[in-house]
Amino acid sequence: MTLLNSRLKQQMDFLLEIDKVKNIFRMTSVTGNERRENDAEHSWHLGIMAFLLAEYVKEDVDINKVMKMVLIHDLVEIYAGDTFAFDEKANEDKYERERESAKKIFGMLPEDQGKEFNDLWEEFEACETIEAQYGAMLDRMQPLLQNYINQGGSWTEHNISVEQIYKRNEITLKKGPKELQDIVNFVVDECVKNGYVKSNK
Amino acid sequence: MTLLNSRLKQQMDFLLEIDKVKNIFRMTSVTGNERRENDAEHSWHLGIMAFLLAEYVKEDVDINKVMKMVLIHDLVEIYAGDTFAFDEKANEDKYERERESAKKIFGMLPEDQGKEFNDLWEEFEACETIEAQYGAMLDRMQPLLQNYINQGGSWTEHNISVEQIYKRNEITLKKGPKELQDIVNFVVDECVKNGYVKSNK
Repeated sequence: MTLLNSRLKQQMDFLLEIDKVKNIFRMTSVTGNERRENDAEHSWHLGIMAFLLAEYVKEDVDINKVMKMVLIHDLVEIYAGDTFAFDEKANEDKYERERESAKKIFGMLPEDQGKEFNDLWEEFEACETIEAQYGAMLDRMQPLLQNYINQGGSWTEHNISVEQIYKRNEITLKKGPKELQDIVNFVVDECVKNGYVKSNK
Repeated sequence: MTLLNSRLKQQMDFLLEIDKVKNIFRMTSVTGNERRENDAEHSWHLGIMAFLLAEYVKEDVDINKVMKMVLIHDLVEIYAGDTFAFDEKANEDKYERERESAKKIFGMLPEDQGKEFNDLWEEFEACETIEAQYGAMLDRMQPLLQNYINQGGSWTEHNISVEQIYKRNEITLKKGPKELQDIVNFVVDECVKNGYVKSNK
């Protein structure tokens, strides 16, 4: 886009480039199991969850920062692709692949904004601040709700056990708000009761 | 969802219901013209634009409020459907149809949150505050960028003229930040130059 102002041009080029995340499809499906959902839809859902469920975070939390984090957290998948939560091998080098991708996508922005976006992404990945921990909890909860409403969804499709679900979510669950942990437990229990997910024991 | 806490149940039911907006398709397409984009993807894009382009709003603006507004502004289309910007007849009763829909979707939430969401939606529609005006500008700009990258996109498909584009965006343009107005003008000019859009004159 040949605009005179190069800062504005960088911002517009970035906005057009990130459109590609609408074609990065996840393992989970939209309600009704009609088709897989993509990263943009998933991130939109998290953005709304971030302010809808803020009351359950007991500490002071910067909700605006959480919203920014969840809206941009999957942009790295434009070049690194979606890594299925239960694919252990692909998860081994996930961070390295995504960090390279982060450099590329956020490097399109004016330097100050590129740094801001990259810092938000790194903070989210490190999962140490209350904002990142809350965002990560939402990121785990959302596909869980989708699978619940789709009677097992990607869990059933890939024969994922209840033990795998808890192992995968162990650290995030410990750090997340109590009420949201209860929802995760409730949803997994319901899926077991209804035969959507089986135990390995 | 039969959770003991009725407040949490209302919030979860709402989160599952709004998943339906992922199946409300717009006239504009994702990059590459492969398929139409849906309301969730569109709103996600606006959420990022809201903080990426905030520097161009000269007055004090509550960006967090703008982000909330743009993320929820199309939820009313779950029941009211998408109204094509250039369908004058359908636009006549758009507000009435959407207001009924707003009551229904936000009425699912706990009373305090239902009121908060409905107020945000009404403020966005009224387009009087700086937050609503900035959000509305983004809402008009995003499909414009999509159409530009898709060599005319829904404008070409529906034979929309340059005069119709400016008429449709007249009020929003006047109220929006100068730099973003320049982008709109630049993009429309480029589309004319490249023959994607024709003049009626």
